[in-house]
Amino acid sequence: MKILNKLAATLCIPFVIGCVEKQQDTHQNEGKNKLNFIIIFADDLGYGDLSSYGNPTIHTPHLDRMAHEGQKWTNFYAGASVCTPSRAALLTGRLPARSGMASNERRVLFPDSKNGLPTSEITLAEQLKTVGYKTAAIGKWHLGHKEPYLPTNHGFDYYFGIPYSNDMDKIDGLLPYWDYCHQPNDSIKPEHFNVPLLRNTEIIEWPADQHSITKRYSEEAVSFIKKNKDKPFFVYLAHNLPHVPLFVSEEAAGKSKRGLYGDVVEEIDDGVGKILATLKDEGLDERTIVVFTSDNGPWLPFKNNGGSAGPLRAGKGTTWEGGMREPGIFWGPGNIEPGLVSEIGSTMDLFTTFSKIAGAKIPDDRIIDGIDLSETLLHLAPSPRNSILYYRGTELYAARLGDFKAHFITEGAYGELGARAAHQTPMLYNLSHDVGEKYDIASKHPEILQQIQELISEHKANLVVGEDQLVERE
Amino acid sequence: MKILNKLAATLCIPFVIGCVEKQQDTHQNEGKNKLNFIIIFADDLGYGDLSSYGNPTIHTPHLDRMAHEGQKWTNFYAGASVCTPSRAALLTGRLPARSGMASNERRVLFPDSKNGLPTSEITLAEQLKTVGYKTAAIGKWHLGHKEPYLPTNHGFDYYFGIPYSNDMDKIDGLLPYWDYCHQPNDSIKPEHFNVPLLRNTEIIEWPADQHSITKRYSEEAVSFIKKNKDKPFFVYLAHNLPHVPLFVSEEAAGKSKRGLYGDVVEEIDDGVGKILATLKDEGLDERTIVVFTSDNGPWLPFKNNGGSAGPLRAGKGTTWEGGMREPGIFWGPGNIEPGLVSEIGSTMDLFTTFSKIAGAKIPDDRIIDGIDLSETLLHLAPSPRNSILYYRGTELYAARLGDFKAHFITEGAYGELGARAAHQTPMLYNLSHDVGEKYDIASKHPEILQQIQELISEHKANLVVGEDQLVERE
Repeated sequence: MKILNKLAATLCIPFVIGCVEKQQDTHQNEGKNKLNFIIIFADDLGYGDLSSYGNPTIHTPHLDRMAHEGQKWTNFYAGASVCTPSRAALLTGRLPARSGMASNERRVLFPDSKNGLPTSEITLAEQLKTVGYKTAAIGKWHLGHKEPYLPTNHGFDYYFGIPYSNDMDKIDGLLPYWDYCHQPNDSIKPEHFNVPLLRNTEIIEWPADQHSITKRYSEEAVSFIKKNKDKPFFVYLAHNLPHVPLFVSEEAAGKSKRGLYGDVVEEIDDGVGKILATLKDEGLDERTIVVFTSDNGPWLPFKNNGGSAGPLRAGKGTTWEGGMREPGIFWGPGNIEPGLVSEIGSTMDLFTTFSKIAGAKIPDDRIIDGIDLSETLLHLAPSPRNSILYYRGTELYAARLGDFKAHFITEGAYGELGARAAHQTPMLYNLSHDVGEKYDIASKHPEILQQIQELISEHKANLVVGEDQLVERE
Repeated sequence: MKILNKLAATLCIPFVIGCVEKQQDTHQNEGKNKLNFIIIFADDLGYGDLSSYGNPTIHTPHLDRMAHEGQKWTNFYAGASVCTPSRAALLTGRLPARSGMASNERRVLFPDSKNGLPTSEITLAEQLKTVGYKTAAIGKWHLGHKEPYLPTNHGFDYYFGIPYSNDMDKIDGLLPYWDYCHQPNDSIKPEHFNVPLLRNTEIIEWPADQHSITKRYSEEAVSFIKKNKDKPFFVYLAHNLPHVPLFVSEEAAGKSKRGLYGDVVEEIDDGVGKILATLKDEGLDERTIVVFTSDNGPWLPFKNNGGSAGPLRAGKGTTWEGGMREPGIFWGPGNIEPGLVSEIGSTMDLFTTFSKIAGAKIPDDRIIDGIDLSETLLHLAPSPRNSILYYRGTELYAARLGDFKAHFITEGAYGELGARAAHQTPMLYNLSHDVGEKYDIASKHPEILQQIQELISEHKANLVVGEDQLVERE
């Protein structure tokens, strides 16, 4: 194979061929009656990037329809403000500091990283496999590209995607990275990025053709759904876009008024439409829950090649709302009770909620941070979650309790000014009244700061920070 | 009457009792087949204040339903960034500089103002009366509170509302105005504001009970619709809220997670729900077009007592997008073709569009700035409007042509810092890519600046600035 020849010539990271299953299917509860789960996870998409969340020029009719027919959450959070820890949080239902997937030295995994998500961690895929689900990870992984860490060794029966970010790594001798993504778009080509595409554990394309990748991810999801329509299934579809560099297929190019960034988001939305249509065609729509969210906020230094946090402050990499609050859309006709939900939720809750709905036992040998949202999803009951912890690496920068958020440390994102500042008196915002975090009310509410301090003390008493899995290089 | 006694004691402005009709109904085209029109116009509500436009904690299910079943416009503009000129623009279809309703000395009318909208101007109500419509103005007028200027002398068969803003005037001896609206809310009472409530030309309450006013406006609209269900009708329902000071009825108080501001917006939305229900109950829903928009952007210096412009820059009083771009929702089952519309529209276009749909002749003795949007509303055709002129008083500060907006002069709103600055090279933004007006691209696109200059030259060649109607005091 030509591509594998190319791989052989340029390979600097040993990918393992062949899939070793870490855990056997038990099939003990297999049955057609179980709900299927599809998580569609965008990359660096901001709170303000969908038309249903207020974007004026990006048209996302399929996601908007999901929001209208299902639940549109307006206080839904990623588990971290950057890729790797956010993905670890979603799949394990645990704060990334616990699993060692948060680091103060290297914020995410890179192609020279040695480690990944420890095999001792239990993923949502592994949970669902214990009750008979077929599982697929499609898209960006970014939880370790070496043998023990690939999706097929973390509970996924099938994998198709790229193992880390689509900008890893740029090929040397070209423009510096930061200049790169401010170039006119047609000067940037997939060949400038040294990123492989895998099927299961095999590299099938290198560099990945990123122009067609979004479309192919959606097609892979459709194909997996069709093949597994008679079993309960779980699809984790983690698009690697709209993370820069931005690429779209020929047919999607130039369609959006928002420019290339809009084209990319609209192509993801097209894929959502195809998946929903497949569910309907196969009679699975009333047996499936589909979620859409994103791993972290928009990468603002990339200007118009980055997204929008809408009314939220700042973006990716920060513990301001723009860094971690995301669209959160739940769809499932006959199951998800339609409504606008301004209660608090987290991507970590998907682990617990879907485990509960599927009848999988929640692990009791470790702390799980995810909370069961099923009563909210199925019956619009109030969310049982009333707090969010905003970590940067293994440091707690901010905490939300109910309407109120206290910032103990603030810092700009990478690529943006804004030095780290520790606040003797924390800054305090009422997020329900002041979502833009503009009006510090700390001096008026010492009692709320006190309550938040108590929340944190309780949390820290139960926190064991896992050994840093991101820092070690080969 | 107690209230009239109070009026007699405190009256400082001569209201005229009795209604003189300036124009006779012609009834030449009266008929059941004509569509009814309802314009619901909020005051100081921002682009980001409805859930369908991205607000995380204000729930507006009725407006959201209108947006979903009808058209949600994302590039819809008020005619000015403050009350009086914006209202003149909507009702006359003309730039307020033409009618003398824009001033560089006094930005709006006040209780000591001598004049109002000239009787020589033709309002949308007068237009529709020529073809047999019954017309009502309900809510805030702000186009002159003296005899010749009241709604009943500008084409409205019926009027119920307050003649100027709900903060006019504060009663002396209390807290300074700016402190006022930052007070804890329960310290502010309707009695602090010297604003009368009129029915037709008669004062029926003074000061107006602002706690119940939003509810009463909606009830008046419902009542007018029921009374006139067999005729074509036009209701101009101009809520005086969420302009500060904020008041709600007892039943709406404390309902919104957004606090008092949210309660106010949600009470307006409740009223929308009652109006839509009435249309359905009376079998009028497929014979009526309902529009919702606002007069200008949020009054940001009032912090959480002001609204949100969402992703837009700045707010009320400025010619940044936050000052003039508004939610624009068109609903009319069977008539308005549902869709998300990111084409350009203006409140001035309502004059022309509704006149055309109703079969009323567009005046040919004056320049009308409104453009007929009916093909877009009825058939989702591209909008024929491709430009917006952003005036402050009678000075043109900025102009939009297609995707691009050039700022020639910028200035902060009143109550906000930001000195007037004239730009030798205008600032240029691509609003479709960069709705937050962050990335000036003037140096890259001199050809676009040239096109915008040509647009302005053409416009100015046809502009006669009307005599200033706002400056003169009694």
